[in-house]
Amino acid sequence: MSDFPKFVQLNEEGPREGFQFEKGPIPTARKIELIDALSETGLNQIQVVSFVNPNRVPGMADADEVVRGFKRKPGVRYTALWLNDKGLKRAVASGLDIKGSLSLTASEKFVQRNQQRSMADNLAAQHEMIRLYQSYGLPVERGSIMAAFGCNFEGEIPHERVLGLVQTMFDLAAEHGLTLKTVSLADTMAWATPVSVRALVGKVRNRWPDLKVALHLHDTRGMGIANAYAGLEMGVDTFDSTVAGLGGCPFAAHKGAAGNVCTEDLAFMLHEMGIETGIDLEKLIEAARLAEDIVGHPLPGSVKMGGSLDALRRSLH
Amino acid sequence: MSDFPKFVQLNEEGPREGFQFEKGPIPTARKIELIDALSETGLNQIQVVSFVNPNRVPGMADADEVVRGFKRKPGVRYTALWLNDKGLKRAVASGLDIKGSLSLTASEKFVQRNQQRSMADNLAAQHEMIRLYQSYGLPVERGSIMAAFGCNFEGEIPHERVLGLVQTMFDLAAEHGLTLKTVSLADTMAWATPVSVRALVGKVRNRWPDLKVALHLHDTRGMGIANAYAGLEMGVDTFDSTVAGLGGCPFAAHKGAAGNVCTEDLAFMLHEMGIETGIDLEKLIEAARLAEDIVGHPLPGSVKMGGSLDALRRSLH
Repeated sequence: MSDFPKFVQLNEEGPREGFQFEKGPIPTARKIELIDALSETGLNQIQVVSFVNPNRVPGMADADEVVRGFKRKPGVRYTALWLNDKGLKRAVASGLDIKGSLSLTASEKFVQRNQQRSMADNLAAQHEMIRLYQSYGLPVERGSIMAAFGCNFEGEIPHERVLGLVQTMFDLAAEHGLTLKTVSLADTMAWATPVSVRALVGKVRNRWPDLKVALHLHDTRGMGIANAYAGLEMGVDTFDSTVAGLGGCPFAAHKGAAGNVCTEDLAFMLHEMGIETGIDLEKLIEAARLAEDIVGHPLPGSVKMGGSLDALRRSLH
Repeated sequence: MSDFPKFVQLNEEGPREGFQFEKGPIPTARKIELIDALSETGLNQIQVVSFVNPNRVPGMADADEVVRGFKRKPGVRYTALWLNDKGLKRAVASGLDIKGSLSLTASEKFVQRNQQRSMADNLAAQHEMIRLYQSYGLPVERGSIMAAFGCNFEGEIPHERVLGLVQTMFDLAAEHGLTLKTVSLADTMAWATPVSVRALVGKVRNRWPDLKVALHLHDTRGMGIANAYAGLEMGVDTFDSTVAGLGGCPFAAHKGAAGNVCTEDLAFMLHEMGIETGIDLEKLIEAARLAEDIVGHPLPGSVKMGGSLDALRRSLH
């Protein structure tokens, strides 16, 4: 167990995942309030909005206003999501800390639903995105494979397909003179279990030992923290997560189900394992409670209810 | 990973843990309805009530009526909880499938709160319980260590103390000519993390390689499933759990926090890992939804909302 990472990077995606998913409408000022609270927790990366079609994702119609409204804290990287050139242009114009990233999807049926294009068209679109990234002078170091562990519309995703897509992503980058440093495997529809995390991450690491593997996990079936633990056992040191477990995928056909793996629950486990995150857990718990107040219904995270152990330890001394 | 168990025993404790914990009052008929539904899920052990002081645990005042009311399904063992001779007498009189078990607590402060006696008095009481078990001709094969991973009132529990208590329990049994087959480590106040599960279970298994180790896990800080996974990695093949995650400890000073590790989420993980439980997951999910209907508020389990993957797989074929 001495091979657990010493530091784990948590990329906070709560504002983007949550406000994209919630029925709302959530006032812009309250979105800004949450981002400002998250900025004080020690998180060093916060995805604040997505620049997507407001007709498809009405909760993100005020993305530009949100970006203008929050206070930038030095040392925190504020990012966004986009799915196409139009979104990227808005992201660049917003002045956020944008880096290029590639995205492939391991399920033909899901990419069709989520992005209205085929896997082949999506691959072609990545070339165009790289050209755009390069025209803006943006670094491109990360690629993501969505639906890497399974798909609600297609079922199991063979590991060989995912490995093939990682290779495709390397080739794609190389054609443009780029080298990817990180591949994120996204369990977009919560098909992963600890055993499948071990298996797929293991295969990726065997084939590309120097590649950094990140995990983007959903908690729809309660496996999020266990999957993260299995990832840690395989040397994964970067996770996307959302405060209070905000979020869920609006196109994944789940109703009332939990969203992403919860940042404060993950940070709690990491700290208890002696792994640093740079996060002040008590402040993060406060932000989680604020998130719950903002959306106006219970959110799935547990530590915001159960409390941290460090708080208990302090109260005992 | 080939050393995961082929079959895992899940001891359902939802009716007892849940109805003991819920503010209620829950009509006796509805408690019976849940037990009858659980009987049809393939679970082979269900703890249906606790025989405890109704002044301290009003939700269990109707324990005898509940026991008289449910339909016994052949092949299912229906059990109960008791804390003293008075409770045991009621349990024996109820005609349930009672086996003796020993219980020690690793925290002086918690045993005082939970049972109003010292650790020394609790140990002395176990002798009396064994004499009673023997007078009723009941087998005694299992012992539990409560608060084995930490205590809200005392903090960390040293592993050496837990190991000492396991030895004490063996000695105690031996004095009466008994040999324990199983020791259950209970994370009564949700202090465990996957790493502490590995560490403590590992130490117990190193010292007593032939002893069966069971885990009783709470999910108050969202670690329940990850802790179970860590236990599986250490060869644990018996877990207590509650349908829908019912429960929580009424004397542990948590409010609104999650209860025990959730049976259907655990069964989901096990099945996806290729481990058998004998459970029909879809029927168990239905029982979890029934439990939620009975208590009248959302319960923490995830798979009852997210749905099983097998159901999705079937819908795709």
